[in-house]
Amino acid sequence: MPANNLAEKVASLRFLFNPRSIAIIGASQNPAKPSGQPLIALQKNNFPGKIYPVNPRYQELRGLKCYSALKAIPEEVDMAIIAVEVSAVLEALEECGQKGVKAVVVFTSGFAEVGGKGIKLQKEMTDLTKKYKFRLLGPNCMGIFSARNSLWADFPLMDAPEDILIPDYFGFITQSGGFGCILYEVIKAQRIGFSHFVSTGNEADIEFSEIIAYMADDAYTKVIGGYMEGVKDGTLFFQAAEKALEKEKPVILIKTGRYETAARAAASHTGAMVGSDRVYDAFFRQKGIIRVDSIDELTALLLITAAGKIPRGNRVGILSASGGTGVLLADKCAEYGLEVVSLAEETQEKIKNLLPDFASYANPVDLTSAIVPKPGLLYECAHVVSADPNIDALLICFYNLGVNEDILNQIIKAAKASEKTIVNIVWGDENICQKQIRYLNDQFVPAAREMGVAVKALSNLIEYNSRRQLFLQEKSVSPVPLKAKEDVATILAKIAPTAKLTEEEAKQILKTYDIPVTEEEIATGPEEAVAAAARIGYPVALKILSPDILHKTEAGGVKLNLDTPENILAAYKEIITNASAYQPDAKIKGVLVQEMLPAGVETIIGISRDPVFGPVVMFGLGGIFVEVLEDVVLRVVPLTKSDAYEMIEEIKGRRILDGVRGQSPVNKSAIAEVILKVAQLAQDFPQIKELDINPLICSDKGVWAADALIVLQ
Amino acid sequence: MPANNLAEKVASLRFLFNPRSIAIIGASQNPAKPSGQPLIALQKNNFPGKIYPVNPRYQELRGLKCYSALKAIPEEVDMAIIAVEVSAVLEALEECGQKGVKAVVVFTSGFAEVGGKGIKLQKEMTDLTKKYKFRLLGPNCMGIFSARNSLWADFPLMDAPEDILIPDYFGFITQSGGFGCILYEVIKAQRIGFSHFVSTGNEADIEFSEIIAYMADDAYTKVIGGYMEGVKDGTLFFQAAEKALEKEKPVILIKTGRYETAARAAASHTGAMVGSDRVYDAFFRQKGIIRVDSIDELTALLLITAAGKIPRGNRVGILSASGGTGVLLADKCAEYGLEVVSLAEETQEKIKNLLPDFASYANPVDLTSAIVPKPGLLYECAHVVSADPNIDALLICFYNLGVNEDILNQIIKAAKASEKTIVNIVWGDENICQKQIRYLNDQFVPAAREMGVAVKALSNLIEYNSRRQLFLQEKSVSPVPLKAKEDVATILAKIAPTAKLTEEEAKQILKTYDIPVTEEEIATGPEEAVAAAARIGYPVALKILSPDILHKTEAGGVKLNLDTPENILAAYKEIITNASAYQPDAKIKGVLVQEMLPAGVETIIGISRDPVFGPVVMFGLGGIFVEVLEDVVLRVVPLTKSDAYEMIEEIKGRRILDGVRGQSPVNKSAIAEVILKVAQLAQDFPQIKELDINPLICSDKGVWAADALIVLQ
Repeated sequence: MPANNLAEKVASLRFLFNPRSIAIIGASQNPAKPSGQPLIALQKNNFPGKIYPVNPRYQELRGLKCYSALKAIPEEVDMAIIAVEVSAVLEALEECGQKGVKAVVVFTSGFAEVGGKGIKLQKEMTDLTKKYKFRLLGPNCMGIFSARNSLWADFPLMDAPEDILIPDYFGFITQSGGFGCILYEVIKAQRIGFSHFVSTGNEADIEFSEIIAYMADDAYTKVIGGYMEGVKDGTLFFQAAEKALEKEKPVILIKTGRYETAARAAASHTGAMVGSDRVYDAFFRQKGIIRVDSIDELTALLLITAAGKIPRGNRVGILSASGGTGVLLADKCAEYGLEVVSLAEETQEKIKNLLPDFASYANPVDLTSAIVPKPGLLYECAHVVSADPNIDALLICFYNLGVNEDILNQIIKAAKASEKTIVNIVWGDENICQKQIRYLNDQFVPAAREMGVAVKALSNLIEYNSRRQLFLQEKSVSPVPLKAKEDVATILAKIAPTAKLTEEEAKQILKTYDIPVTEEEIATGPEEAVAAAARIGYPVALKILSPDILHKTEAGGVKLNLDTPENILAAYKEIITNASAYQPDAKIKGVLVQEMLPAGVETIIGISRDPVFGPVVMFGLGGIFVEVLEDVVLRVVPLTKSDAYEMIEEIKGRRILDGVRGQSPVNKSAIAEVILKVAQLAQDFPQIKELDINPLICSDKGVWAADALIVLQ
Repeated sequence: MPANNLAEKVASLRFLFNPRSIAIIGASQNPAKPSGQPLIALQKNNFPGKIYPVNPRYQELRGLKCYSALKAIPEEVDMAIIAVEVSAVLEALEECGQKGVKAVVVFTSGFAEVGGKGIKLQKEMTDLTKKYKFRLLGPNCMGIFSARNSLWADFPLMDAPEDILIPDYFGFITQSGGFGCILYEVIKAQRIGFSHFVSTGNEADIEFSEIIAYMADDAYTKVIGGYMEGVKDGTLFFQAAEKALEKEKPVILIKTGRYETAARAAASHTGAMVGSDRVYDAFFRQKGIIRVDSIDELTALLLITAAGKIPRGNRVGILSASGGTGVLLADKCAEYGLEVVSLAEETQEKIKNLLPDFASYANPVDLTSAIVPKPGLLYECAHVVSADPNIDALLICFYNLGVNEDILNQIIKAAKASEKTIVNIVWGDENICQKQIRYLNDQFVPAAREMGVAVKALSNLIEYNSRRQLFLQEKSVSPVPLKAKEDVATILAKIAPTAKLTEEEAKQILKTYDIPVTEEEIATGPEEAVAAAARIGYPVALKILSPDILHKTEAGGVKLNLDTPENILAAYKEIITNASAYQPDAKIKGVLVQEMLPAGVETIIGISRDPVFGPVVMFGLGGIFVEVLEDVVLRVVPLTKSDAYEMIEEIKGRRILDGVRGQSPVNKSAIAEVILKVAQLAQDFPQIKELDINPLICSDKGVWAADALIVLQ
């Protein structure tokens, strides 16, 4: 889907977020029912537009004229909320279409999430949105509120908070209404203001990704959050994620399905198609989406971002009021990839002058209990350490028996004076902690109760920032000339669709994209094989050539290191016999005579098509590593150069590429090049369903595709 | 160290926990100083014994006669608290010794933790404890309190809590005084009573492990906790851990140093010798010690154990008030190894009758918002699900806008009626959560705010319980007859101490312990090699035989698959040439002619000596797996049978042992046997410093030590 399509989609959401008039179809006077709540909320929050209750049972509702039907409303209606029985929904939508309504919110359940007939009903619903060109939120959703627009088209009644620290800050999207409501209450209690809250339900029309894109464009929303079980359209998600990166709106998601069991539960919970979580996880990393596992982590991120300072790197200083606490905190930093570096000598000198003999001046700095009696000491230490050029951020962990405002004020003073992020961990009795945390947060000095939560949040934010910098610097460009694409198109045009290509055909395609392949020739008889070997040079390998045999080694169809004509003659015979025994109906085209490559590390590069994200590139170490340890890494196409390099560094066995047992390190740039070219192939040719280069032999001199498999769809 | 030694040590701690009289040497009238605090605390908490302040500056302190010196006290003194300057400590200890004091607590800092002269001072301190046979806590510690004995020999002033849910429940030991104080406040706020609190400081005499053993014996303490940076004596720790297992006292530790950086910080914080964290971690698993990463996890465990029900297995049911929440919780369960199983059909039927159409009856059970309006519904559902025979424990995640006592009472009613553990996760505004959690905990119905914390705690407890059952069922017994030990002793007696053994010698030792080794003979010349091959049977391998060459392959000293006399003659010559070139001064004894083994999986089994724990057995997959992925698992000797089997299942690449690429699964029992025998060798012969069987070839038919290395110390 082209990006301008996304822009169009976003533009069409205008009336969902900011309607001038709202009809509530099925409006009820019962405040306990979803159908009774939007009217109360709209009135209470002074919605500036017109409100039209629609229900033939009432003449009037809460002081407003109640209409018998939508068409009875004399004026234009921008938004309709539908809160009628499932059997009456489609008719109501027809009426909306005829009335020219622009945005519809459907609370009603009983569609795709119940399966069977519900799926059919939902399909008809989607068709109606296309017929009448209105946008639809839901069904089976809790609606939307948009604080700045005083729009509360949702249930249950969510109170607008009275005491907001930072208004219109956070935009939230949820695929579970219930979870969204809980999250709203938790975040609200931290006094972080919501710009918008959107419950997308079954997504019969409006998708999660569109709302991300809308919020990325929105001037007020600074951070976007969400609860996601899965998206239907990976391309749209890709574009929305890039838009959010571009506009510097961090996207923080709670995504279920990290473990298979849970993914199954999610599948039964909504009608969304849930792709493999591994692909989602790779995509999140690729596009700087921060994945969190709890509401606490999300809250910590909101508080740190609200302070407005993003650390430039991952080097941290630690100040603690007990040695043991400092050590624990250093442990957490190591766990989440933050470096507890040595402080500059000058800093250490200054600390030595400030602190008594038994404190530790190294990083972590142990303030001991000296901070309590000595006025201003904590500020001095925090000031000195945060100014150290060796560190990018400062972590302070302290403990108070009571709410000691003097201690807190010292921290606030140091934080205000520093251009670096200072994150606090406050320990002790929960009640007292909460008060202290609130005191600090009131001044935009981020604080949390749990070390792991604070450190992980800081680390995630640093990772987000570096990802964003990379994104701004580079765009994905084709690593091959247009001519190559045309040539491959010609080759593919000659092959029957849905065919498995022979190794030779597959390699020809790779070669056209300038991917190094082993030198080789086809031989249809033993003497031809000997002649080919003479041209290629001894020793050679012989491999069975058959579109029907995918696993050549298993079929006994591979012979290596053949160094004489006699050996070749014998091997030829054996291979043909083995292959015929292995699969009697296999079409055998002969053998491939192949140069023997220098010893190297076997890797594997492949393409598969994900039902959500489309083409996905895989890289890993070959053989047992991929089979047993599943030591592979994924990225969604298209890739940038840094994506390719990151893939190589992300495998667990990466040390093998750096050279073990006295071997030279392999040429990683050459691997990255192949990854990029394979990704480009996937992008250029949707008919390539699967591609495997296995193995890609890697040495210090270069890389060679020793075997290749392409399956068309 | 024999176990009766531990019993003696524990007995000698009697006066530390329950002295009849206490002298405070250096007692001060300043309540802000450590020297001023014990007297206040002892008086406030009505210590039943005698208190003798000692300080020549006062005649009287807080209504008590103050003595000029310890010897001036006319009666017996069981305990002395030393709170004088570092320069006066040794003299005070001399006086304690002469007076016959039984237990000394040293607050004073400035010993091993400052290095240099401090280390020497501490050594003299340890010597005095031996000379006078008193026990010493510290130095550089915050002392001890023992609630039941009204003993408060500590600083800073820790208030005995007024409102205790469960008195004398938790015994805590800390190597960081500051961290211990923080933890005390946090746990106290949860109203869990401490039986004892011991800050061990530098451990010049009394060690962490002794206190564990004391608390294991203590009738009141039900759970033992600790903050640990490292122990000095692994054997003592081993015995103490087993005693705690035997007495059913879970040991829950926060242990620093999981990551290297943090371990370095810990090393600079105390004088304790910190061993490799990997060994600690293996040991914890081996002996059922629960390792936690935060105080919250510890608190959750205390609350769950206090409910008095330990789940028999890891199958859980989930009840949640929102579908999304249930999915998230299922994710967490998968992460921590709990199984979200299908409920019995009968249970599903019952739930269906209780819940409206749109809820989910599978596990997780989605109660939807139906629980609020329908009285008693939550109880009914919890009751039905907890009674399901398919599950061992129930997790309930709910959310209330206010403190809804009716909802809470339903949960309590269900929990009381069930013999299974019901753990609650309460979400929402922190303030309200806290009140709800307290309401539940008051009734011993465990509740926490964070999913991850609750699920991990439950999982840890289940793991602890299964570990304890195993411990009760089996004891480690020698897998070899006494005769084997005598024979190896004879072999070793012939070899010079500290020597590296030849492969042949090493294999002879393994063979004596009935570990299968490759059939082989020594040959000192090429013709001898040919003759040996004829006896062993072709094909054979030739390997250089030299005590000076440890890495034979690197030295070009190995030739495989030799199938003719000619090949053997050539290989012999080449090996000798290579080895001489590789290490000209190497003493070459000839070659080993060895049977070629069937193809199999290469594993590695070894012994090393840990500075803390002594002999440690390692098992892993050989080759690149051990070198690059460090896919190895450790256990501390002695091992039980289940330890050996667990080691095999714990490696990441375990699937290789089950047979990949069409191979048969290897004989795991045979591997376990070798692990046990190697462990026994380590236990029987302290002079074996290192042992490596690399590779141990494993197939479905058996295992063979193809190469072996033994280094004596």
